[in-house]
Amino acid sequence: MPTVDLNADLGESFGRWTLGDDAALLRIVTSANVACGFHAGDPRTLVTTCRDAVAAGVRIGAQVGYRDLAGFGRRFIDVEPEDLYADVLYQLAALDGIARTVGGEVSYVKPHGALYNAAVEHEAQAEAVVRAVRDYRDTLPVLGLPGSALLRAAEDAGMRPVREAFADRAYTPGGQLVSRREPGAVLHDPQQVADRVLLMVTEQRVVDIDGNPVAVEADSICLHGDSEGAVAMANAVRERLTTAGVSLRSFVT
Amino acid sequence: MPTVDLNADLGESFGRWTLGDDAALLRIVTSANVACGFHAGDPRTLVTTCRDAVAAGVRIGAQVGYRDLAGFGRRFIDVEPEDLYADVLYQLAALDGIARTVGGEVSYVKPHGALYNAAVEHEAQAEAVVRAVRDYRDTLPVLGLPGSALLRAAEDAGMRPVREAFADRAYTPGGQLVSRREPGAVLHDPQQVADRVLLMVTEQRVVDIDGNPVAVEADSICLHGDSEGAVAMANAVRERLTTAGVSLRSFVT
Amino acid sequence: MPTVDLNADLGESFGRWTLGDDAALLRIVTSANVACGFHAGDPRTLVTTCRDAVAAGVRIGAQVGYRDLAGFGRRFIDVEPEDLYADVLYQLAALDGIARTVGGEVSYVKPHGALYNAAVEHEAQAEAVVRAVRDYRDTLPVLGLPGSALLRAAEDAGMRPVREAFADRAYTPGGQLVSRREPGAVLHDPQQVADRVLLMVTEQRVVDIDGNPVAVEADSICLHGDSEGAVAMANAVRERLTTAGVSLRSFVT
Amino acid sequence: MPTVDLNADLGESFGRWTLGDDAALLRIVTSANVACGFHAGDPRTLVTTCRDAVAAGVRIGAQVGYRDLAGFGRRFIDVEPEDLYADVLYQLAALDGIARTVGGEVSYVKPHGALYNAAVEHEAQAEAVVRAVRDYRDTLPVLGLPGSALLRAAEDAGMRPVREAFADRAYTPGGQLVSRREPGAVLHDPQQVADRVLLMVTEQRVVDIDGNPVAVEADSICLHGDSEGAVAMANAVRERLTTAGVSLRSFVT
Repeated sequence: MPTVDLNADLGESFGRWTLGDDAALLRIVTSANVACGFHAGDPRTLVTTCRDAVAAGVRIGAQVGYRDLAGFGRRFIDVEPEDLYADVLYQLAALDGIARTVGGEVSYVKPHGALYNAAVEHEAQAEAVVRAVRDYRDTLPVLGLPGSALLRAAEDAGMRPVREAFADRAYTPGGQLVSRREPGAVLHDPQQVADRVLLMVTEQRVVDIDGNPVAVEADSICLHGDSEGAVAMANAVRERLTTAGVSLRSFVT
Repeated sequence: MPTVDLNADLGESFGRWTLGDDAALLRIVTSANVACGFHAGDPRTLVTTCRDAVAAGVRIGAQVGYRDLAGFGRRFIDVEPEDLYADVLYQLAALDGIARTVGGEVSYVKPHGALYNAAVEHEAQAEAVVRAVRDYRDTLPVLGLPGSALLRAAEDAGMRPVREAFADRAYTPGGQLVSRREPGAVLHDPQQVADRVLLMVTEQRVVDIDGNPVAVEADSICLHGDSEGAVAMANAVRERLTTAGVSLRSFVT
Repeated sequence: MPTVDLNADLGESFGRWTLGDDAALLRIVTSANVACGFHAGDPRTLVTTCRDAVAAGVRIGAQVGYRDLAGFGRRFIDVEPEDLYADVLYQLAALDGIARTVGGEVSYVKPHGALYNAAVEHEAQAEAVVRAVRDYRDTLPVLGLPGSALLRAAEDAGMRPVREAFADRAYTPGGQLVSRREPGAVLHDPQQVADRVLLMVTEQRVVDIDGNPVAVEADSICLHGDSEGAVAMANAVRERLTTAGVSLRSFVT
Repeated sequence: MPTVDLNADLGESFGRWTLGDDAALLRIVTSANVACGFHAGDPRTLVTTCRDAVAAGVRIGAQVGYRDLAGFGRRFIDVEPEDLYADVLYQLAALDGIARTVGGEVSYVKPHGALYNAAVEHEAQAEAVVRAVRDYRDTLPVLGLPGSALLRAAEDAGMRPVREAFADRAYTPGGQLVSRREPGAVLHDPQQVADRVLLMVTEQRVVDIDGNPVAVEADSICLHGDSEGAVAMANAVRERLTTAGVSLRSFVT
């Protein structure tokens, strides 16, 4: 029986501002990428989110990001590797300590937003992220794009890379994500998305933007939950997978 | 042979802005109250400070504060206890994780600035701080003013209260600190201060602002290092104590 | 024909986080208290909000607050008057410059959240706010609670105080707001609220929490818009007033 | 008699952290690039700095930067032009309002740090900065590197570009700045620097890194003041120029 992990971003509220339907997502995903306070996530939100994740039996990941509340971590920042190293270490330690206090722990690390994107090709930033994770706890898996500098750096450091695919994104014939600036880059139909994910999980391929099959190997599927439609799509994916007999569980055993 | 701990604030630089002579202080004190990022202390500074403290054999304390960089944590904030609880937990976990990564650990907690002052009488805030420390690791001592709500809350929680005296502050006939708003509240002569500290440590008393002896029981003496004069005074205190045969060591064994 | 001003808070989104239905409120109110970036309101939001307010013919007020994004300006901060003075001046100048760039201007100042509450009794903070407004432009009206230190300070400075009443709050027999900690402090029925506001405007009185009439003099009525119910209530108030022949217009002519 | 403007960064303290010898610089320069709160400069510092600049008869420029206190605005941020536009407008308006309140005004705009560097080649960011300045007040000169996208955008917008040269930087044979990553990029000898500046001002040329003369046209010379040595160098430049009969005055008449 095939198995896969479903992950989504949680804990991205900040003070008076709420974002995402965390309660709904905790019934869908097996891994929660919890914000760590630098791009989103005030400490009280993190405590609540970790407590709820533990109660739901969902794995907690540290969703480390750039220090940029105003930009929600979505803007590349040309931060020096030594600063990034410390920023990641700080965020990871803070979330892990909170998670442990409520009976859980951080089980993996996934960079957020622009840092995730930067870590695809920016060797120095990718290496800084990995080094921080390794120095903190070298058994922590690192989640990223297949072929990214991030996953290469993780492997080079003797750590476990976890390959991620995106439920609602179009793929190029080369198996890369179609840039968000291109038309058709993001898919909106829940049933189509559910079909695609099932194919990714059971046959390790997806229909590319030209209509041809392309190989995609994924240990985890990324879902979204920041709108009503996003939750509905996430639910559709989960239902399709379970109906087809796919076992949903964290990549961490 | 009498023993005492000397503590001072470290790690209070932030990005481009440097503050305090941390290198000098690490040769003087036995406990370093390291900022945790909310009132001061960027992550890279914290990494460096913890590394240097470990190298110097100085204990690391988490100097948790209000979230107020612009005010340096020196302004009372009427934060809800649940928010304060989470803010303290976040800061403590972040610093402890960094300290562990460089081979040390957080050995105690001391609130900073306005939070320290609030915790003298503000039961709800004092209790929130203590609860965060207890939930994180209930063996961590809490440093505060003798008779403060903070130390009472620590005791009530079955934790170890550590009583602190101030080297350069005048005391009332009742054994309290003279308010900084009063004339003569802060002492400036290094030799006079050194004499006073020696008396505190060896005879558990100090000359009050009226010239009479008053009892002061202290497990740790707070020094400053944010000016050239402050470092000179801290050195004078250390020298007087060691010359008199006082053993300087952390209250954590 | 009686006239009154309706005001509400706008521009309180921040980056990725949105808050309030500003578009709906601009069809209801005559004065928009626009956040200035310290408790909420990123610059791009402020530009958009000012532009929309100008297009809607709604007056722009500077909703100055404590520097506290995490607390949304709702926590009292014991900031020094000289710092508060500069914080208010900075926020007011920033918003006024933006408003002028889009063809409007700041027409009044209303403190936000905990600063509003502090300015009821905290003379030093009230005076600092007023002094900043006066030094910036002494013709700007200051909005506050009748009898507050803020309005007294405005009058003492030769500036125009604007008295505000709250549509959805209960009043004591003495004409003060019932504390939010008391039961019944906040009213939820739109029609009841609309009735109360009409009475405030046409007869300068309101039914107090004991059921007796009490005098309330208000130049402006504060509405809310941060939930669907809040907008419905604001609409009910507007409709009741206009149906009764009350003219809705800014207190600034 | 030749004339030139001398500019330096001021107002870069933040809360408890002080930076630079503003008092010394105000006796040297004719233009003060005052921080606007996003990379440095708390509001109280800005009020004081503007007041002191007005008292010293020194022109105030708005030193707008990225929103990045932790990075001091020295890290490139890939901010969207519309966000940057609003960020610049907000900062410029805040400082101008403060300057006017103390009897001065903002007389020009100079981007800070990484934004200054980005504006050399990043057309979209350069254009966003210029558009914000133009929309705020289209008579404000914009200070930048000769040949930069920033100055081109200013000219295209019908605004006045002000060309800047650096006192302590080496130049390439092409008249560009030698990258800070290259050896010899920064000069340290005050007398050599003073000689170079005099040549720039009187003969519009400088000795390049290979020892040959190269043309440099500058309306303003940038000095530094963030160390004791920097102030001594700035003083040496001023003295050399005035001794040689160069008139020091702002490019704004």
